[in-house]
Amino acid sequence: MTATFGTTSTTKTPDLGPAVELVSKEEGHRQPLAPEFVSAEDFSPLEVAYDFGRVRREDIEAGPKNIWRYKKLLPVPSNVEEIPNTEPGATRLIRADRLAKELGLKRVWVKDDTGNPTHSFKDRVVAVALAAAREFGFEVLACPSTGNLANATAAAAARAGWRSVVLIPKTLERAKILTTAVYDGDLIAVDGNYDDVNRLATELAGEHPKWAFVNVNVRPYYSEGSKTLAYEVAEQLGWRIPPQIVVPIASGSQLTKVDKGFRELGQLGLVDASPYKVFGAQATGCSPVSAAFRAGQDVVQPVKPDTIARSLAIGNPADGPYVLDIVNRTGGAIEDVTDEEVVEGIRLLARTEGIFTETAGGVTVATAKKLVETGKLDPDAETVLLITGDGLKTLDAVENHIGPKATVPPSAAAVNEALGY
Amino acid sequence: MTATFGTTSTTKTPDLGPAVELVSKEEGHRQPLAPEFVSAEDFSPLEVAYDFGRVRREDIEAGPKNIWRYKKLLPVPSNVEEIPNTEPGATRLIRADRLAKELGLKRVWVKDDTGNPTHSFKDRVVAVALAAAREFGFEVLACPSTGNLANATAAAAARAGWRSVVLIPKTLERAKILTTAVYDGDLIAVDGNYDDVNRLATELAGEHPKWAFVNVNVRPYYSEGSKTLAYEVAEQLGWRIPPQIVVPIASGSQLTKVDKGFRELGQLGLVDASPYKVFGAQATGCSPVSAAFRAGQDVVQPVKPDTIARSLAIGNPADGPYVLDIVNRTGGAIEDVTDEEVVEGIRLLARTEGIFTETAGGVTVATAKKLVETGKLDPDAETVLLITGDGLKTLDAVENHIGPKATVPPSAAAVNEALGY
Repeated sequence: MTATFGTTSTTKTPDLGPAVELVSKEEGHRQPLAPEFVSAEDFSPLEVAYDFGRVRREDIEAGPKNIWRYKKLLPVPSNVEEIPNTEPGATRLIRADRLAKELGLKRVWVKDDTGNPTHSFKDRVVAVALAAAREFGFEVLACPSTGNLANATAAAAARAGWRSVVLIPKTLERAKILTTAVYDGDLIAVDGNYDDVNRLATELAGEHPKWAFVNVNVRPYYSEGSKTLAYEVAEQLGWRIPPQIVVPIASGSQLTKVDKGFRELGQLGLVDASPYKVFGAQATGCSPVSAAFRAGQDVVQPVKPDTIARSLAIGNPADGPYVLDIVNRTGGAIEDVTDEEVVEGIRLLARTEGIFTETAGGVTVATAKKLVETGKLDPDAETVLLITGDGLKTLDAVENHIGPKATVPPSAAAVNEALGY
Repeated sequence: MTATFGTTSTTKTPDLGPAVELVSKEEGHRQPLAPEFVSAEDFSPLEVAYDFGRVRREDIEAGPKNIWRYKKLLPVPSNVEEIPNTEPGATRLIRADRLAKELGLKRVWVKDDTGNPTHSFKDRVVAVALAAAREFGFEVLACPSTGNLANATAAAAARAGWRSVVLIPKTLERAKILTTAVYDGDLIAVDGNYDDVNRLATELAGEHPKWAFVNVNVRPYYSEGSKTLAYEVAEQLGWRIPPQIVVPIASGSQLTKVDKGFRELGQLGLVDASPYKVFGAQATGCSPVSAAFRAGQDVVQPVKPDTIARSLAIGNPADGPYVLDIVNRTGGAIEDVTDEEVVEGIRLLARTEGIFTETAGGVTVATAKKLVETGKLDPDAETVLLITGDGLKTLDAVENHIGPKATVPPSAAAVNEALGY
């Protein structure tokens, strides 16, 4: 058995910057950098290992106002900012005093990743995947997706002048189809569910040596893009690691990479290696990691997702065990919230801070609330919430809950009456 | 007759930073800073005048990464960044080589204002309006709107902890209603068209001394927010004014403020006061300024709008004559494009640069194309295109034009066949 897909005929040596090898997550087997994602030794996921050398704050601060300022910490070539690609990152970290008050926390920061090119954190991971894929000689950017990843992949390929192949279940909402199709790549609707689409992606990756499926054959590089969330939070806090951070869990990859990012910053001396706690957020309708945490287990039992938080609806999260390790190691916790609480979380963030997040953000906010109520988040310690996607893409989640206060005839008297004057 | 609305009982002296007076645009009558928008002397719009003192690049560069870095050039208090408000701006300026090639231009930059908090440039103007309104003692942020402004006003009020009153025509698309309602202000649907809603706003502004209608009684402050587009473009180009810029025209305010911003930078010595040409873009279905330009007139004949570019559909643009002045003075031009061209403009930007803009951005891109074809844009001179709003808000404009390449059964063979392998 081999997990080697998409090996190419290029003879160029890939320039992946500080990246030096791939390491298996279970037993630490090392192998050369390649477009592979599972260790042939222990069958665990492969992760990028680095030799960073010296990295200084000044170098980063002098870089571009996007994720490429962290290029010395990513598996991307040293001239990455000169190569056509998207420029995600440098999104707002805002002090959320009104939200903090409602949550009963002293100080809350919201990392608002809706400001990315296609309005989700997926632009970060796709940009890194594209940069690495180019070095390996791939020529097509591909993915299976139900939403944010489809948008990000199609957009990044368009900007780079690459062809994209995006596979989606044909039942996807029309809005999500349109927001991918507009970039004019090869969008294929599959008469099947997301599992079917995912299986197809793995099969096609084996057949097409020039196709980089961002979340399959170049996944070790792709997933490193999430580290930039941690880097930006720390830099925006004035080169500090926040004592508490709440991260939504889908595959669990983002949470593990936020932790990896914070650890790297500490190891490099870019921040004081102060202790921090990582908290995980799930929707109850897809909460296998939360359930395992609650039961004190270190393995995750797959579930069949049933939640409005579709971008988190991965029933068998690949990084679930690693998430449990990190949360336990840092002294954090994992909680899950009902769909009703998700909607209330979306509305709470909107009415207190003017940020309209998708369901995943509602999960994060509602989970933070629950973690305060159950005494797991320290109300006196600063807390960062990762808001990773945009409410404009999941309007269906809120449409039965909100609307105009009143509909009135066109007279000032009628408006006044409707408003109680 | 007086245009004084919303005078308040506050006794605090407003701190509006470098702003010193209001000046009427026609005859230059001067009056003290107040929440007024039309000169009682000559009935022309009032504009903010400043005493900037010394402003250095270093002061700006050391400021926050949002529009408040330009606070010394705006009618806002000197501690504006410490007061709850949104933090728009610092959006991407990207080099658009693939778009440039398709347009036949040597160098194109796209200012992608979809990265703002509610994904349009309206966040800039509303943030400035809110900051000024607070100084005048207002307590409610209000507007009549059909879309982007409603989102921006409701979101900014939420973040600041203000009440908002947003008036919309009840026929507005459900998506636009939801994206305003979610912020939980007082959203009132009016059984009438936009003209009815606008008239109501003016009437209500007179009745409610604590209500700041951002685009009515505090309009002179509000509109100054658009200057930040010019400031950011110049700073992002390394403190240079681009020789050519294409700006969409609704009321015309944005175009006049972009020009004002460039002129101020030159006067302050922050950039070389190099010549630049301002180009205006309209949809043919609402092209009164373009028609006047073509006819060589200096007044604008109102029209009844009929175009998919609804955010530009102002049939009687208040700043039309000033737009004509600026375009003529700088040696620019104005063109208009059909709805079909608007859709093609949206698709062109998406497939070349991975940016999905709303119809207004489609107007800008398609107009740029036309201006090249008619020889009005110099292909050898750098050109900036202002992309001011997001395609996620105007999905209806593209939905009959795009979609998946194919719908296939869940087999790799079927995908390959659909893609011609």
